[in-house]
Amino acid sequence: MSSFLVPFLFFSLLVSSVFSDQAAFSSHLLPRPLILEYPENSVETLQTQLRQFDADELTLQCTSWRVAGEANNLNPWKTIPDECLEYVRGYVNGKGYLVDLQRVADEAVAYAKGLQLQGDGKDVWVFDIDETLLSNLPYYKDHGYGAEVFNPVDFDMWVDKATAPALEASLKLYQQLLDMGFKIILLTGRSEAQRAVTEQNLRSAGFQSWDRLILRATEDHGKLAATYKSEKRDEMLEAGYRILGNSGDQWSDLLGWPMSTRSFKLPNPMYYIS
Amino acid sequence: MSSFLVPFLFFSLLVSSVFSDQAAFSSHLLPRPLILEYPENSVETLQTQLRQFDADELTLQCTSWRVAGEANNLNPWKTIPDECLEYVRGYVNGKGYLVDLQRVADEAVAYAKGLQLQGDGKDVWVFDIDETLLSNLPYYKDHGYGAEVFNPVDFDMWVDKATAPALEASLKLYQQLLDMGFKIILLTGRSEAQRAVTEQNLRSAGFQSWDRLILRATEDHGKLAATYKSEKRDEMLEAGYRILGNSGDQWSDLLGWPMSTRSFKLPNPMYYIS
Repeated sequence: MSSFLVPFLFFSLLVSSVFSDQAAFSSHLLPRPLILEYPENSVETLQTQLRQFDADELTLQCTSWRVAGEANNLNPWKTIPDECLEYVRGYVNGKGYLVDLQRVADEAVAYAKGLQLQGDGKDVWVFDIDETLLSNLPYYKDHGYGAEVFNPVDFDMWVDKATAPALEASLKLYQQLLDMGFKIILLTGRSEAQRAVTEQNLRSAGFQSWDRLILRATEDHGKLAATYKSEKRDEMLEAGYRILGNSGDQWSDLLGWPMSTRSFKLPNPMYYIS
Repeated sequence: MSSFLVPFLFFSLLVSSVFSDQAAFSSHLLPRPLILEYPENSVETLQTQLRQFDADELTLQCTSWRVAGEANNLNPWKTIPDECLEYVRGYVNGKGYLVDLQRVADEAVAYAKGLQLQGDGKDVWVFDIDETLLSNLPYYKDHGYGAEVFNPVDFDMWVDKATAPALEASLKLYQQLLDMGFKIILLTGRSEAQRAVTEQNLRSAGFQSWDRLILRATEDHGKLAATYKSEKRDEMLEAGYRILGNSGDQWSDLLGWPMSTRSFKLPNPMYYIS
């Protein structure tokens, strides 16, 4: 919750109970410790208010943590903070995530429309796959939304099902970029062994065509994602491609050398990949 | 407001009025259009609830815009969205901004403590100044919190007053880094002509020492901030410095080449510098 709403809501909750129960307290309620001001018959009301206040404080702290992650300010982390589990669950299943995904897609489209493509097949947009084109939310729902340490064996079993749905905002962006004439290169941390299921999943989710799908080859295993992906972008550059856009949910999709002309960081509060 | 709280709050507001006024409606209140369910004597209550809902939606949208900015997803912008003026005012004057600033400082300290400095005077931490060490909030309070187009003449008059207060979290971080033995280099977009007032302001705000203060020289005017600052970081590299940390409120403080080993993006929803 935005901090400027907190006083309003807290006050409005106070007013409704105070005016009905204890109007005499209203003139000096706010400046003093609340616990001392309340008569016994208001204890339940007070507890409700304090729980609400605690929830607001928790939302403020977890939002701050999430924003710090989106701005790449956090050290590599293995699990989300325990106290933010409900917050993350609410965010990824709620409107906030959808609004944020749509905003990133809208910004990408606006940028792409402003470009003058050379039309020689060298105008490239790079997409990551997981939490960028495909959503693994069904998997993470069953694994604590990032509160459990990542289990690569379990996750690969999920990947093999090839049932991850599209992120709708990304699917629309993808189609628009194709229509504009971009060469689409998919660059994923998934293994070459997962090529078939990945292609199957992409197609069933609505991604019908791409120019290249790059997965980790044997020699790429063990490399940091940022290193592997930078190397692949460098190869694109060497091959004469112009990397005009890059969409990914991890900073390791976007940073390094070379970088895309513009990078788009999709929200992901559930996990971090170096 | 985080989206998962919206239904709870909205419901709790409904329940309190419905239980007292119209208990008979409670069993089918939520699934139907609210406007049809309410008897005339609840119109005011309903209006209050709808205003609250609108406020929540606006908070969601403005938070999304703010987060997109912190993640560097937005195109360069000249003014904040009009509809987010109250949101930005609330954020920068409220707890959210302070919590976010403290979090970035805490992450920076945790990172710095984990480093093994070489102690040869080449371990550098770079700081931007405006909205990173010094707060120009008093100026922006009088200029619409970014809703007004930036006026360099007015702003320079404010700078000349040398009264900008410290961002407290940054001041503590700064002192800790000095104590750890970092060489502190201040790299600002301010002009060389503002050196004296900048030094005066820094000292009066509590920043007592630094190794270098780099301001824009004549030849730097007209350069993009990202270009100017990258060039200066490159000069540090050429001089044998190791840039281990870099703190700034603009992505143009942090991106480019070379980048610091770790970069820390301080929150700033009020303005954007390319």
